Amino acid sequence: MPGTPTARYAYFGPEGTFTEQALRTLPAAGRAVLEPLPTITAALDAVRAGDADAAMVPIENSVEGAVSTTLDALATGDPLMVLREVLLPVRFVLCARSGTALADVRTVASHPHALAQCRGWMSATLPQADVVPAASTAAAAQAVAQDAAFDAAISSPLAADRYALEVLADGIGDVRDAVTRFVLVGRPGGAPLPTGHDRTTVVAYIADDHPGALLEVLTEFAVRGVNLTRIESRPTGERLGRYCFSIDAEGHVDDARVGEALMGLRRVCADVRFLGSYPRADAARPGTAPDDAGFRDAQAWLARVREGRTT
Amino acid sequence: MPGTPTARYAYFGPEGTFTEQALRTLPAAGRAVLEPLPTITAALDAVRAGDADAAMVPIENSVEGAVSTTLDALATGDPLMVLREVLLPVRFVLCARSGTALADVRTVASHPHALAQCRGWMSATLPQADVVPAASTAAAAQAVAQDAAFDAAISSPLAADRYALEVLADGIGDVRDAVTRFVLVGRPGGAPLPTGHDRTTVVAYIADDHPGALLEVLTEFAVRGVNLTRIESRPTGERLGRYCFSIDAEGHVDDARVGEALMGLRRVCADVRFLGSYPRADAARPGTAPDDAGFRDAQAWLARVREGRTT
Amino acid sequence: MPGTPTARYAYFGPEGTFTEQALRTLPAAGRAVLEPLPTITAALDAVRAGDADAAMVPIENSVEGAVSTTLDALATGDPLMVLREVLLPVRFVLCARSGTALADVRTVASHPHALAQCRGWMSATLPQADVVPAASTAAAAQAVAQDAAFDAAISSPLAADRYALEVLADGIGDVRDAVTRFVLVGRPGGAPLPTGHDRTTVVAYIADDHPGALLEVLTEFAVRGVNLTRIESRPTGERLGRYCFSIDAEGHVDDARVGEALMGLRRVCADVRFLGSYPRADAARPGTAPDDAGFRDAQAWLARVREGRTT
Amino acid sequence: MPGTPTARYAYFGPEGTFTEQALRTLPAAGRAVLEPLPTITAALDAVRAGDADAAMVPIENSVEGAVSTTLDALATGDPLMVLREVLLPVRFVLCARSGTALADVRTVASHPHALAQCRGWMSATLPQADVVPAASTAAAAQAVAQDAAFDAAISSPLAADRYALEVLADGIGDVRDAVTRFVLVGRPGGAPLPTGHDRTTVVAYIADDHPGALLEVLTEFAVRGVNLTRIESRPTGERLGRYCFSIDAEGHVDDARVGEALMGLRRVCADVRFLGSYPRADAARPGTAPDDAGFRDAQAWLARVREGRTT
Repeated sequence: MPGTPTARYAYFGPEGTFTEQALRTLPAAGRAVLEPLPTITAALDAVRAGDADAAMVPIENSVEGAVSTTLDALATGDPLMVLREVLLPVRFVLCARSGTALADVRTVASHPHALAQCRGWMSATLPQADVVPAASTAAAAQAVAQDAAFDAAISSPLAADRYALEVLADGIGDVRDAVTRFVLVGRPGGAPLPTGHDRTTVVAYIADDHPGALLEVLTEFAVRGVNLTRIESRPTGERLGRYCFSIDAEGHVDDARVGEALMGLRRVCADVRFLGSYPRADAARPGTAPDDAGFRDAQAWLARVREGRTT
Repeated sequence: MPGTPTARYAYFGPEGTFTEQALRTLPAAGRAVLEPLPTITAALDAVRAGDADAAMVPIENSVEGAVSTTLDALATGDPLMVLREVLLPVRFVLCARSGTALADVRTVASHPHALAQCRGWMSATLPQADVVPAASTAAAAQAVAQDAAFDAAISSPLAADRYALEVLADGIGDVRDAVTRFVLVGRPGGAPLPTGHDRTTVVAYIADDHPGALLEVLTEFAVRGVNLTRIESRPTGERLGRYCFSIDAEGHVDDARVGEALMGLRRVCADVRFLGSYPRADAARPGTAPDDAGFRDAQAWLARVREGRTT
Repeated sequence: MPGTPTARYAYFGPEGTFTEQALRTLPAAGRAVLEPLPTITAALDAVRAGDADAAMVPIENSVEGAVSTTLDALATGDPLMVLREVLLPVRFVLCARSGTALADVRTVASHPHALAQCRGWMSATLPQADVVPAASTAAAAQAVAQDAAFDAAISSPLAADRYALEVLADGIGDVRDAVTRFVLVGRPGGAPLPTGHDRTTVVAYIADDHPGALLEVLTEFAVRGVNLTRIESRPTGERLGRYCFSIDAEGHVDDARVGEALMGLRRVCADVRFLGSYPRADAARPGTAPDDAGFRDAQAWLARVREGRTT
Repeated sequence: MPGTPTARYAYFGPEGTFTEQALRTLPAAGRAVLEPLPTITAALDAVRAGDADAAMVPIENSVEGAVSTTLDALATGDPLMVLREVLLPVRFVLCARSGTALADVRTVASHPHALAQCRGWMSATLPQADVVPAASTAAAAQAVAQDAAFDAAISSPLAADRYALEVLADGIGDVRDAVTRFVLVGRPGGAPLPTGHDRTTVVAYIADDHPGALLEVLTEFAVRGVNLTRIESRPTGERLGRYCFSIDAEGHVDDARVGEALMGLRRVCADVRFLGSYPRADAARPGTAPDDAGFRDAQAWLARVREGRTT
């Protein structure tokens, strides 16, 4: 539309990362300026500073687990809000400068998570190769393209293509069906409207160092029938044994049951940071949408009782 | 006030019962017509039929436990609502027609609960006497006054006086400091306003015969920090193992925490009958009034979050 | 067998009570001396004194609920142990001296529980009749047989027969399928062997007056998957709000899961009185016998781990 | 002692890592052969293969959280057992080849966790420097010593010394009092004897994908009064939302309460891997040792009850 400013999306780069792939699955990305930034923190800080409207970052991988940097960057600093999530199957390739044969590969660069996910293939195929950590899989591909210091990179097919590398082996991840979950993060504001298949992300800071704290937190959700799909403890940095919890729950903050559970969380915790309610990328799973009818019925009943009725 | 109709209060009679004593502790009883009725059920039905504005009945005794008839009559039939509670120390006397000596007593009439509470004194003092159940302690005194079939009655001092009997022994209850709790019951309508020291009474019908039902019910209260002061299981009459629960909780239905707990109860139960919120007769106990500030803070926080804030 | 002393069983009498009927369902009762005693307490005390080998008493009715006298007599005094349970359908008759017509009945005697269970039939059929409480249904029948003071009794068919009364109306209870549960109580000693369909009865005294006590008690059972079939709060007699809990649980004290739950109960309670493990009278219900295999597996696993294994 | 084979301890190397520092705090390390291995996995596999008697690896950092590689390597593969834990304050230095001035530093190598922990100092002092990930802080120091590709490393003081580097800045971590916890891991066998101040580590695999699983796991510990000091969810690698839990609990597997909690865990989980009971390095904290007396009393009581007693 003429006059509408073009949206600017930052992402964890450089070009060719899985994160860029995830961002490009969003229709809105086709009309936006996409800017790669060298770290997750840089991408999120660009949103905080107003240099980007939103940022795409990885949050969780089915093999390697939580992306701590993302969790910690969302839990601290100026508030941000998750607007969307994207699930991306992860496919690794070994790529090298044109003319390199598999037998010639002596050094392989990649992000530590990617190296970990291809460990089995590497020991079977390139047992003698040195592995070198890189800041991202795409940074590894870029380094191979620019510099003869490394013979090959483990990266996404997109990165191989972007840096004009040749694919020596495809699908080399040890776990078939590995998936990474990415989130599009913006500045606080109204959450996306409920769709009936939503997820809510919060960070809960435990009031004091009492052993039953996590049990209390879980009970607040369980009593309202709110399922949790992810829970991570993260150190607050103060000392061992001092944690906060990063939590994904089914449902939307506007759902009665989720609202009541969050109020309960707020009461038993020292602090709660709301990180957003947004549509689930795996919404198609049947039977997972919690029904709010029981909550609405109970609210109507309480209103009647408070006006003098008995049932 | 001229033109104001005089209030009519029914009570579990006949004249001279502990229930009448309890009713007379209420200032309003001094300006009202008080009508004794022969059974608890009759007193409550008089309220249902509009023949009385309210009825005083016993609900719980510190020695004998719950008064099942009252619990069952409140749990079924047209809805009623508890408006007030009264705690009355229980003092038993043995009384007889003038001229009767303690040594002459062969038969003693009283209500089964009173007989049970004086069992120790009876076996020590009148081990040979026959005990005969009566519909109330006052009915026993009345029977002794009218009929030579019984030699003596165990009753309240008030009944001995009312039926012109002579007190042969005073304070014959086995348990010092026995207390009975009475409730003044009216037709549904707005509950008394919160005083900060209130009690709420409900009946919870379990959804189906699942073993964890009571645990769920208790959890709904515990999660909101609402203390229970009484819980009784009562058969629904259908078969062994099928129960409802009669529950007294601290707090008022207008308190946020109590309202939320009652909504939770409503969700996990097949049915909930609200029986009233009313001032506690033992309100003086310090530190028992739950604080609603945490609930109000959480509600304000949720409202902010739903409008787009994060904390 | 020659030389074997004949067993002596006390029961809550007089002759003709439902309790006698329940006792006579036991094969062993056919070879024993059966002695009616006037009160539940007297029957249990006969066992304590060694005057009877065991006593049959009612403990629970599907319409009227717990028999408080029995619960309290088992919870206090010298220890006793439940050896068996009997379920008996309850059938009430209105019976009178020969020649009495239904239209002539002006006064009806019975036990208060029986009167309560026939209230509907009475108001429909004999709305003008005076009801008079008696110590038991059989005592009411006996009184009618001996004395013209009462016109009719509500009792068991057995009592009508025993006291040569004529049945004016049969099956007059308001609730079809009413059932009473009776227990045969002896002195402590080895519980009956596990049958796979057992029940365990205990009394739990709460440590101090803390609100969450019942929740803790229930949790000890729930965590081990032990279902409760009855739970009654009973006042300890000290003051309002001070309770013990009378509990029936599925399973036998020798079952691993029940043993562990009872140990848990012991830890969280001020005192626990074990009242016996005995075969369920309703054992035929399929699927209710808890499986101990998981507990045995876990014990074997722990033993391995303590010896230095990891799984 | 003559004839006693010298113990061989592997550790996460190369020489100069914080892990080597932790290992050297153990008196036994002074008499042993210490072998650096390039990865955590390699160190643990050396134990599995019998090439080392035990291995020291990092497991948790007060700033960066769990060391996923260690958790995952302990949770899978041939069983291992934790024998000891060591807490080590973490002190970072910036070190370079002799003659390098702080102003000359353009590239800084270190382990990603160390880079993360010095981010604040780096942006304040060397905002333009490129950061390069290395396999360990000591590997970074080694690389700086051997190769002009990097100007400086963030490492331990020990590594700076070992690789003859000059310390340009000391104590550059953003969080004062950062601590890393290390564990000494051996092959399964009898756990160290209870000291009264022990920790137990297990991995719990959830039976199926049911939302309340973690709540159940926590309840098994809470009901027995066993405190948890760490809980981490780790993906099983199958798909998003499928987890196991790595758990540290207070107490020793030989403690009654811990044994019972572990049996409970075993019952509600698909699998439990026991990873050891060992003395806490922070044993001095008063009041944290749970008392086993209540458990022993309950066991003695149950034994009496099973033999026919009631209390």
